[in-house]
Amino acid sequence: MEFNLWGTPDEAKDLSASVKKMLHKMLGVTEPSPRRELSEVRLSPVQLSDADLAELQGIVGAEYVSTQQEQRAPRARGKSYLDLVDWRLDQVIAAPDAVVAPGSEEEVLAVLQWCSQQSVAVVPFGGGTSVVGGLSPLAGDHRAVISVDLARFDQCEDVDAESGLATLGAGLSGPHAEMLLAQHGLQIGHFPQSFPYASIGGFAATRSSGQNSAGYGRFDEMVRELTVVTPKGILHPGQASPATAAGPQLKQLFLGSEGLFGIITRVRLRVHPIPETKLYEAFSFPTFADGVRALRTVEQTGAGPTVLRLSDEIESSVNLTSTDKIGEQDESAHTGCLAITLFEGTTQHAQSRHQETRALMQRLGGESLGEGPARKWEEGRFGAPVLRDSLMDAGALCETLETATDWSNVPRLKKAVGEALAKALVHDGTPALIMCHVSHVYAEGCSLYFTIVGAAGPQPQARWRAAKQAATQAIADNGGTVTHHHAVGTDHLPWMDAEIGALGIEILRAVKREVDPEGILNPGKTFDLSAQSRVGAGNGPAATPAASGASTLSPAIDEGGEGQ
Amino acid sequence: MEFNLWGTPDEAKDLSASVKKMLHKMLGVTEPSPRRELSEVRLSPVQLSDADLAELQGIVGAEYVSTQQEQRAPRARGKSYLDLVDWRLDQVIAAPDAVVAPGSEEEVLAVLQWCSQQSVAVVPFGGGTSVVGGLSPLAGDHRAVISVDLARFDQCEDVDAESGLATLGAGLSGPHAEMLLAQHGLQIGHFPQSFPYASIGGFAATRSSGQNSAGYGRFDEMVRELTVVTPKGILHPGQASPATAAGPQLKQLFLGSEGLFGIITRVRLRVHPIPETKLYEAFSFPTFADGVRALRTVEQTGAGPTVLRLSDEIESSVNLTSTDKIGEQDESAHTGCLAITLFEGTTQHAQSRHQETRALMQRLGGESLGEGPARKWEEGRFGAPVLRDSLMDAGALCETLETATDWSNVPRLKKAVGEALAKALVHDGTPALIMCHVSHVYAEGCSLYFTIVGAAGPQPQARWRAAKQAATQAIADNGGTVTHHHAVGTDHLPWMDAEIGALGIEILRAVKREVDPEGILNPGKTFDLSAQSRVGAGNGPAATPAASGASTLSPAIDEGGEGQ
Repeated sequence: MEFNLWGTPDEAKDLSASVKKMLHKMLGVTEPSPRRELSEVRLSPVQLSDADLAELQGIVGAEYVSTQQEQRAPRARGKSYLDLVDWRLDQVIAAPDAVVAPGSEEEVLAVLQWCSQQSVAVVPFGGGTSVVGGLSPLAGDHRAVISVDLARFDQCEDVDAESGLATLGAGLSGPHAEMLLAQHGLQIGHFPQSFPYASIGGFAATRSSGQNSAGYGRFDEMVRELTVVTPKGILHPGQASPATAAGPQLKQLFLGSEGLFGIITRVRLRVHPIPETKLYEAFSFPTFADGVRALRTVEQTGAGPTVLRLSDEIESSVNLTSTDKIGEQDESAHTGCLAITLFEGTTQHAQSRHQETRALMQRLGGESLGEGPARKWEEGRFGAPVLRDSLMDAGALCETLETATDWSNVPRLKKAVGEALAKALVHDGTPALIMCHVSHVYAEGCSLYFTIVGAAGPQPQARWRAAKQAATQAIADNGGTVTHHHAVGTDHLPWMDAEIGALGIEILRAVKREVDPEGILNPGKTFDLSAQSRVGAGNGPAATPAASGASTLSPAIDEGGEGQ
Repeated sequence: MEFNLWGTPDEAKDLSASVKKMLHKMLGVTEPSPRRELSEVRLSPVQLSDADLAELQGIVGAEYVSTQQEQRAPRARGKSYLDLVDWRLDQVIAAPDAVVAPGSEEEVLAVLQWCSQQSVAVVPFGGGTSVVGGLSPLAGDHRAVISVDLARFDQCEDVDAESGLATLGAGLSGPHAEMLLAQHGLQIGHFPQSFPYASIGGFAATRSSGQNSAGYGRFDEMVRELTVVTPKGILHPGQASPATAAGPQLKQLFLGSEGLFGIITRVRLRVHPIPETKLYEAFSFPTFADGVRALRTVEQTGAGPTVLRLSDEIESSVNLTSTDKIGEQDESAHTGCLAITLFEGTTQHAQSRHQETRALMQRLGGESLGEGPARKWEEGRFGAPVLRDSLMDAGALCETLETATDWSNVPRLKKAVGEALAKALVHDGTPALIMCHVSHVYAEGCSLYFTIVGAAGPQPQARWRAAKQAATQAIADNGGTVTHHHAVGTDHLPWMDAEIGALGIEILRAVKREVDPEGILNPGKTFDLSAQSRVGAGNGPAATPAASGASTLSPAIDEGGEGQ
């Protein structure tokens, strides 16, 4: 993962002429946006002394403390549109003052205790895929900020295949974790779009949700126990058994805590046999409402697909058009809404789920499109963020946002968010392309995931901030959650008060004071409303988050579980 | 529900001669234990002045404050064996000084604020079914204790049938809640053994789990949002949508909090259409290990029965013998382990689940016994606690305890707990009857539920305390949870330190200080280790719980979700 891209420079290919033409003609994209090399980038000066660095080296070893540009730059920003634009601008980028990679819980504890004594803030780092400002190196009122990299927590331990449990190091990437489990014939089944890069610890810290959530659940549902290092000591929040009535669930305070309460170093989680069978089927529904009704019925009946998703009319049309045809008039263009189903497990299990789901989908107006579009979706499912790099090179704004709501509220919420985005993103008379899909279903409701492509314009960050502000306010005003799986970071912070209430925030702060009395962990994020936020920029509904210029930011958090 | 029984006096019928003979011959039961009438019972003197009572009446209305014996007695104890024995002894019973029934959240808040100012402890009361000392009226260091009865929170509101959500008053009993929902064609699907009496608020406060948990989940999994009144204000912990990544899950602090953080007044929870079809099938397995393997396979495959349970050899033998044959030699006595399955939902859904489950059960050694034993189990499933009243009259000790663990640990835990109980409960050379079943299954493991019948002996409470102490220590030492669904109350308090760790307890205490600064809510329970506990009696592993004599107890909590 390149510091200034989602993927590698090789992956971010130049767009075809037809796509470029479409961007220009339909979206008003004009000026390409050149990337900068790492050597051209200016990072903030290191605020730690040689004596500080020597003390940190004394804890973790000299080779695991770095102040080099190559180490600091990839830990200075996440992978949101705002983050990636930052690297293209001629400005000083605030970066962590050092990158420290402890190798054991004891070393993490010693680092946190040193930072508490020395008033140095800490931003935990897993895979670096936050799309909500979770990595911003904010120092709060501390004198410096370090990035604590979990990369050395990379083991798979204590596999209990009978019970379907394994303990994984927080620094393991999705593919690395799956590779280690595959040696036992097991898998996690967690495939968010960030899967290739994001880490096990980050999935837990951000309540990530993957594309197979209909079958395997959200990541937070898979977690049995965490190992968390706080400045006050090492905790193992979790359960002594698969279920318990022994009081409040402490692990639910640490899941989604985004590094504010401690650093997650290990995760014991539910794992599954690698499936015998995978069955695919796509359907087309006349309207989005028809498709939503079918998804709701399938989920509430308990028919049990592993993947269940639905694109709206615009996204379906883009998905079902081959790339070289984009932008051309096509008489045979798809007009319905594409639904994808996938069934995993034993052969009998997958077949019976498939039959029950197909019967419901067809009864409710779905026309089978066969396996093709479902397999095509699976093949390309990690590709969209890489495409964004190319779109940004061409001068396009490209970003996603997500929410969730009850089934009965889906039409209202989708309309409100779509309209807020459309209104905010008209540029020189050209509209933005706004696509939406449902990719996570629950008995009570579903997620809504919006993808936006438009012209970057002369002030791309201000343009996106205004659109995100409008969309998030529409979410808060229309019964959605401020984030279904991207987490809070700095971007959603101004709406936390609306989301959980003032007394709720006071409770979380009471917990924080208990485990992190000096407030060194990720100041200025998630529910730390005293701090700055990027998106709210003084406009959010919460208690006066100060306006923030990107270049004055200093410290940040664990990487987010970026979505699909 | 009679103050000194589980059921009504009518329900607690005299045992047949053959059962009495069996109790005598096999278990050494000799002396009957007579019940006392309410008029014979001596309650602790009321510690509130007329001025206090007038102030409480000013808040909730004169008719909703009572110091009468008829009101205080049923709120003085729960329904554990220790509780029920208390009523049979010639002693003063500590009771709440008054019973107060507020009619709105504002009235609850005013009562809690008055109690905070006046140093009066509060024990919330739902259905009164706690079997873990949750109702003990402990005052801690306060001058008195009141029972706050939620009975007036008895409405069903905001039904959203499309999303499958409804808001229910915390004081609604199981049957009353189901009756209100049935008017909308909906049900909860939560059927713990306490169902006839226990309350919606109590289910949430204790993380109750019902017999249909394989299909509908635990009660805590059904809860979308709570309304909780704390001395610091009214909270709505929950989620703005079916799922969210907006930080820690605050509702998970209040689920299982057993009244320590606040009083739950309303619960918004997931509801389901009343099923079209119910299918039943029982199986017999040669051994408990065979049955456990089959249950594990069914659950891990995702075959999806609504009910899935398995009795061990002894319990199967008792369950499959007709009552009038108990105690007689029977050449045709059942020798295997009885498994019960039940499938609910749409006809297609129930049938496909049934087929998949049956195929797995049979492949793994299960012999079908047809519908009969499964229907018989369903008919009698709320009957066992009533039978306990009769057994106690006859002079028997009868109690249950429960735990849960991973599949790989089931044999070790069952053996350890069974042996600890057997060793502790031998009386005058006669053993106790110790039965065990699995009634809740998860991908990773299952619950183990023990039912014990033996001779009460001359010191029934000391005898049970010793057995419970030995069994719980065996659970803690052998990888089980101290409670799967009975909750903590006072009885499991000494093991909370082992269950969640010292720093975990400090975090919960930090939350408590934030929402209940005067510590009026349920002092001496769940994680309040400074307080007394009944069972630990100084022998538990946790930080010095003081020894407690039952007659010196003063205040207590919300009723528990008693099991099956």
